[in-house]
Amino acid sequence: MSEIRHALPIRRADDFAQWYQEVIAAADLAEESGVRGCMVIKPWGYGIWERMQALLDRRIKDAGHDNCYFPLFIPLSNFEREAEHVDGFAKEMAVVTHHRLVAGPDGKLIPDPEAKLEEPLVVRPTSETIFGDAMSRWIQSWRDLPLKLNQWANVVRWEMRTRMFLRTSEFLWQEGHTAHADAESAKEHTLRMLEVYRSFADEQLALAVIAGEKPENERFPGAEETWSIEAMMQDGKALQAGTSHYLGTSFAEAANIRFQDKEGQQQLAHTTSWGVSTRLIGGVIMTHGDDDGLRVPPAIAPVQVVILPMLRGNDSDAALIDYCEELRDAIAKQDALREPVRVQLDLKPGKPAPKRWTWVRKGVPVIIEVGGRDLEQGKVTLLRRDKLWGDDAKPAFAGPSRLDCVAEISGLLEDIQASLYDEALARRENAIARDVDTLEGLTAFFSSEKRYPGWVEVQWSKPTGEELQQVVDKLKSLKLTVRNVPINAAPVEGTCIFTGKPAVERIYVARAY
Amino acid sequence: MSEIRHALPIRRADDFAQWYQEVIAAADLAEESGVRGCMVIKPWGYGIWERMQALLDRRIKDAGHDNCYFPLFIPLSNFEREAEHVDGFAKEMAVVTHHRLVAGPDGKLIPDPEAKLEEPLVVRPTSETIFGDAMSRWIQSWRDLPLKLNQWANVVRWEMRTRMFLRTSEFLWQEGHTAHADAESAKEHTLRMLEVYRSFADEQLALAVIAGEKPENERFPGAEETWSIEAMMQDGKALQAGTSHYLGTSFAEAANIRFQDKEGQQQLAHTTSWGVSTRLIGGVIMTHGDDDGLRVPPAIAPVQVVILPMLRGNDSDAALIDYCEELRDAIAKQDALREPVRVQLDLKPGKPAPKRWTWVRKGVPVIIEVGGRDLEQGKVTLLRRDKLWGDDAKPAFAGPSRLDCVAEISGLLEDIQASLYDEALARRENAIARDVDTLEGLTAFFSSEKRYPGWVEVQWSKPTGEELQQVVDKLKSLKLTVRNVPINAAPVEGTCIFTGKPAVERIYVARAY
Repeated sequence: MSEIRHALPIRRADDFAQWYQEVIAAADLAEESGVRGCMVIKPWGYGIWERMQALLDRRIKDAGHDNCYFPLFIPLSNFEREAEHVDGFAKEMAVVTHHRLVAGPDGKLIPDPEAKLEEPLVVRPTSETIFGDAMSRWIQSWRDLPLKLNQWANVVRWEMRTRMFLRTSEFLWQEGHTAHADAESAKEHTLRMLEVYRSFADEQLALAVIAGEKPENERFPGAEETWSIEAMMQDGKALQAGTSHYLGTSFAEAANIRFQDKEGQQQLAHTTSWGVSTRLIGGVIMTHGDDDGLRVPPAIAPVQVVILPMLRGNDSDAALIDYCEELRDAIAKQDALREPVRVQLDLKPGKPAPKRWTWVRKGVPVIIEVGGRDLEQGKVTLLRRDKLWGDDAKPAFAGPSRLDCVAEISGLLEDIQASLYDEALARRENAIARDVDTLEGLTAFFSSEKRYPGWVEVQWSKPTGEELQQVVDKLKSLKLTVRNVPINAAPVEGTCIFTGKPAVERIYVARAY
Repeated sequence: MSEIRHALPIRRADDFAQWYQEVIAAADLAEESGVRGCMVIKPWGYGIWERMQALLDRRIKDAGHDNCYFPLFIPLSNFEREAEHVDGFAKEMAVVTHHRLVAGPDGKLIPDPEAKLEEPLVVRPTSETIFGDAMSRWIQSWRDLPLKLNQWANVVRWEMRTRMFLRTSEFLWQEGHTAHADAESAKEHTLRMLEVYRSFADEQLALAVIAGEKPENERFPGAEETWSIEAMMQDGKALQAGTSHYLGTSFAEAANIRFQDKEGQQQLAHTTSWGVSTRLIGGVIMTHGDDDGLRVPPAIAPVQVVILPMLRGNDSDAALIDYCEELRDAIAKQDALREPVRVQLDLKPGKPAPKRWTWVRKGVPVIIEVGGRDLEQGKVTLLRRDKLWGDDAKPAFAGPSRLDCVAEISGLLEDIQASLYDEALARRENAIARDVDTLEGLTAFFSSEKRYPGWVEVQWSKPTGEELQQVVDKLKSLKLTVRNVPINAAPVEGTCIFTGKPAVERIYVARAY
């Protein structure tokens, strides 16, 4: 098998964007659908999303939210009520105008001119306005607050340039929407959900994200505060992996979400919204993928352990399969990361080496191969996907006894989970420059020889309005953006590298997806 | 509490259609959204759907399917390839024609005339054509077969007359799509999935359905065989609760799904598709609801047991809450229907009786009330939702000790599940006439005094073409349809009540949703 020294035709260091597409194909995650900007999420990719959904859904419910489902279509008039909101989305909305097809003059199907909608409908790009309508019906008194809702749904934003998982016209996500009696509790909840995202991303996706507040110019259209978790990809670029918004009372005003407070006065509710999407899968790929394909953190791996018997197509196979079935059943009884271990015995036809490499590319955390000699010796041959290569540049197999393998599988999976996180964290910290204190330094950092430079943490004076715009324009000329103002940053001292004024806070500056 | 002798303002016997709407409101399942034909599924309704999804998803995966996700939008041209299919759906399709909004002459938003799609996109009414495209890419050899896929998704069929859960423009469903090497294995799989639906509907939804084949005129557009499960609602009407289609090779031909067989010849694949939707919730309401609201079968109840402490707002509450928390924790450790019991302690403010009736209307299977006297005596007061009323026309409370309550909760939930099924089955069997052997008898049955007559099982000669159309028209004049040809029916003898020819099979005739 040493002939395959790296499974992908393109390495990360050669062309990261192309490598990304290769991993998606090689791990069989998704493919272009033929429908503009829309992808087909294939079983392995969707399996990862199902795992993400299950884990995050539990956290969202534990935080007191109920799931529900709102319409796909939103009347145009809903958007007219919140000017900033519609400005943010109008340019990328799919619009339904007809409700019937008919054969046209040449026999081809066309939208039936007789079946034109009186009011066109927008395919939801996000659902603040339609949740707002319901909240205005459901909330009468302070006793109805907080109202905490969530939905798992598809949304559509008509993107001109698409990239699988990262930016597609249709994507899957969850969107939480809550209403509160006052700014304080709404802001507190905005941060609580940010922390839900941070812990989910760190503990289960092993992404090592940084949580913080977006600058004014990067706010969700209509929001008063937007917070994000930002992950560093292996090319040093940032990926916004989740956002949580404090919407103030503007959406409540637009949808008329009012309640009677304890003193009998009518008040506007304060609302929040927050979401993560299938984009997270792109983040997992670009954080954990390597030159052999994907590496899936065990917490979200549809299959955590695959068993590959080295079948010979003769009478000896029966005993080997028995041995492997016993192994599978014993492993399935173990728990790892607080759930039963997901183990699969792969009996599909095919030669052992190609089958192994199929699973390597998919990124299954543990591959167990069992051959005739293993059977004789009561052993297994174990490959750890996250540390595939040994010191001799050969795949690093271990050969524990079958009993030890079963006993150690939980610890092994937990170690892989922790190890992927540690790797991501170390890489991120290694690629953040914290000693840049001038604009020249910043410019130099990003124009350095390093192909994948990373992020810079600098201090700024938190400019607003015109002054902020100048900073944004300057950064844009360097293809950079402010990612966020991290929570728990070190204290500031000195001056803003952009304005020369006294520094107020720290920010991360980076190239981004 | 005897003042509330039935919780709903309208009884089933008074106006079944109106009662249905009342239950949906009283149980807080869903409401009109303000978007034409689309509903908002509220937390209790969505919780039931989540339970259905989890249980059916397990069955679908156990039958060897992988979940995946396909685009919401389908190019018009996809529909042109299969004539029958497009004929079946063209009249009710939502069509996306623009990808941007812009302010119109009067300042109102309009679809931007500059952003018209070259080829309009249809919002999927079902996904055979787009799965077909992928199957044609994914299948090359007999080794790739069978290919067994499923997706959970929203679909849109522009219905002119809508009714919540039963017929809405957008609905949620799962759609399975499989490809096989030959007709035999595809037909076998069609029936296997029909059986998955039957057992799911009977065992978990307690619907007591009848599985059988649809007559030719009721086939899915483009299918060679359509099978269904039919449930009887309490008004005697039938609800088609799930369908499974053998599609022959017509969709394979349209999408070019071909494979090389073992002999090296190119062959067309044989495909199947099958689906159930949120319509099932309508079926649960109309099967299990009563004049006090909904009754949810324990297997799909988001909460199976609710504990209501009779709080007094004074110092004695703390001990009562402690007692109830211990009870909740002990119940949560029990298993029922092969899962941990879902129990909730309701500490929301409010008086005991209204709180109890809120849960009665929602249909939680078991309500446990705990008052001061229960606490003193180490007891609880237990109300079984499926048998709410005692012989004296008062709610039938039982007063077991807390220990017995915990020990017996699993058995109680399982008994409620079985009991709801038995009730549905008995009602169905009681409302099916099997002694009708003339067309006059059939007519008389459905024009009888009985407001909710039920179904008739008759024999027919399985007419086709023009002869079938005459039968269909005759039945239509009586507002009747053939529901299906049941599997496992008694042998036929005698003649067809429609054609006078020798009978070939038995059919169910009924009014239907």
